[in-house]
Amino acid sequence: MNPSRSQVTFAERRRLIDEALDRALPSEEAWPETIHRAVRYSLFAGGKRIRPLLVIAAGEAVGGRNENLMPLACAVEMIHTYSLIHDDLPAMDDDDLRRGRPTNHKVFGEATAILAGDALLTRAFHLMAETPCREPADGLRRMRAIAMLGEACGTTGLVGGQVMDMESEGRDLSAESLERLHRAKTGALLAACVRGGAILGGAGEDDMERLGDYAEAVGLAFQVVDDVLDATESAERLGKTAGKDRQARKATYVSVHGLERARSTASELLDKALAAIAPFGPRADPLAALARIIVERRS
Amino acid sequence: MNPSRSQVTFAERRRLIDEALDRALPSEEAWPETIHRAVRYSLFAGGKRIRPLLVIAAGEAVGGRNENLMPLACAVEMIHTYSLIHDDLPAMDDDDLRRGRPTNHKVFGEATAILAGDALLTRAFHLMAETPCREPADGLRRMRAIAMLGEACGTTGLVGGQVMDMESEGRDLSAESLERLHRAKTGALLAACVRGGAILGGAGEDDMERLGDYAEAVGLAFQVVDDVLDATESAERLGKTAGKDRQARKATYVSVHGLERARSTASELLDKALAAIAPFGPRADPLAALARIIVERRS
Repeated sequence: MNPSRSQVTFAERRRLIDEALDRALPSEEAWPETIHRAVRYSLFAGGKRIRPLLVIAAGEAVGGRNENLMPLACAVEMIHTYSLIHDDLPAMDDDDLRRGRPTNHKVFGEATAILAGDALLTRAFHLMAETPCREPADGLRRMRAIAMLGEACGTTGLVGGQVMDMESEGRDLSAESLERLHRAKTGALLAACVRGGAILGGAGEDDMERLGDYAEAVGLAFQVVDDVLDATESAERLGKTAGKDRQARKATYVSVHGLERARSTASELLDKALAAIAPFGPRADPLAALARIIVERRS
Repeated sequence: MNPSRSQVTFAERRRLIDEALDRALPSEEAWPETIHRAVRYSLFAGGKRIRPLLVIAAGEAVGGRNENLMPLACAVEMIHTYSLIHDDLPAMDDDDLRRGRPTNHKVFGEATAILAGDALLTRAFHLMAETPCREPADGLRRMRAIAMLGEACGTTGLVGGQVMDMESEGRDLSAESLERLHRAKTGALLAACVRGGAILGGAGEDDMERLGDYAEAVGLAFQVVDDVLDATESAERLGKTAGKDRQARKATYVSVHGLERARSTASELLDKALAAIAPFGPRADPLAALARIIVERRS
């Protein structure tokens, strides 16, 4: 795919996603104002919308319609944002900076930050369920996508990953345990974006398997690259505290395998992801472009 | 309804609800263990299961089948428990005692308590969506119930109510603002139990309206009685810190209207709830018994 064309496409899609997110939330003036201000502060903080883009790209690769994909696209971004707000709390990773701005609790206080996370998590599922379905088949797919999203966010996914992450501080982790942590903390939600988009798009079994392989590889690559960036990039570029994992003596892909091995793993995972979606041909160009963006990003 | 018979019925139903909750969650040995121990610590802490009982009673009043009602019954108890865990956090109400035992964060630490709440909220929606539906009509009702639950838990319901509650500390609240706070913080979820049970049970429009009136009255009564108990009962009986609202100078039904007015309001709301469900006859006996339990409880 022509990279400049794909960038144009993504810019336009990002705009549509942001508009849908805006419509899905009460305004900052809606009562009680504090919580809506706090929710919007973090949701519209310049995120790259990788997860919603994955939902749409996966759904479109199997012929899904945008209107059926957008509720999940919004939901995964809300859930991603909720997890960042809660992970940054003083009781958790205690981060002051996120995307170059003070973290939610630094601006609104801990109580409101906890509630803003709760509100986003709730709204994600609410939005998925409230959006009307045109056809009965769409309703069944929606239900499957909600169930899959729920699983990705629970104690074997997002929440479980954060627990493991905290428990790994100051400990040596085996390569297997680290991969398990990564799969839960980052991989599960990314995989749910791809698999959920595929379900809503009406993917058959073979396509589900291909997209599942892609999702698996991309999900793991994302976290490996995150670890590389934490070890090598400046806080200024990352927009969050850098070197934090090392300071907290957290197990990362870099601390367990070394920087070079981490980089080559990311590159191998990219190849694996691209191979998995090759049978789709040009319909999967956006998925291929997203895999590259994930592995080659600098922040 | 014969009170001793209704008590027997509720004891049996509570057992079924507890069994369903137990099946719906990973065991304490499931990895990562910490989070599953924390979730179960609060979920099986001797709650009265009022909300699940309301779901089942409302659903059965309109002829619904138990198997269709149980996922929502479990979900509302998970959500109620999540809200207690988060409300008790140091950054929020900072409570040490709940149901006569140390609060979740006192036992497992703040980070795990936040994540235990997140896990319960997630699992509630996950459970609703993953349980298979026998018929397409059941699927549509389930989706409506998920959407209603989402609304009840969001920034105009549970989360919004907690925000208002915090913001009301040390302030004089008008009677209207107080009622708005109560409706959001406690009323919305209780109403969702009744309305959700009715939806899953296949209620028609007239029955929905009757049960809606019942839900409204019972939801408000619940919080009025809560305020009366906080002002009059000992910590020992309540199993949580008593007089806490007064100390925090929180607006309550008692501080705004006085104790006598609060008591007479609770009694009027009970009459209103019972009148709303009178047309159902004996099928609504469990609903009537629950309204009495809510208004006449001592803890």
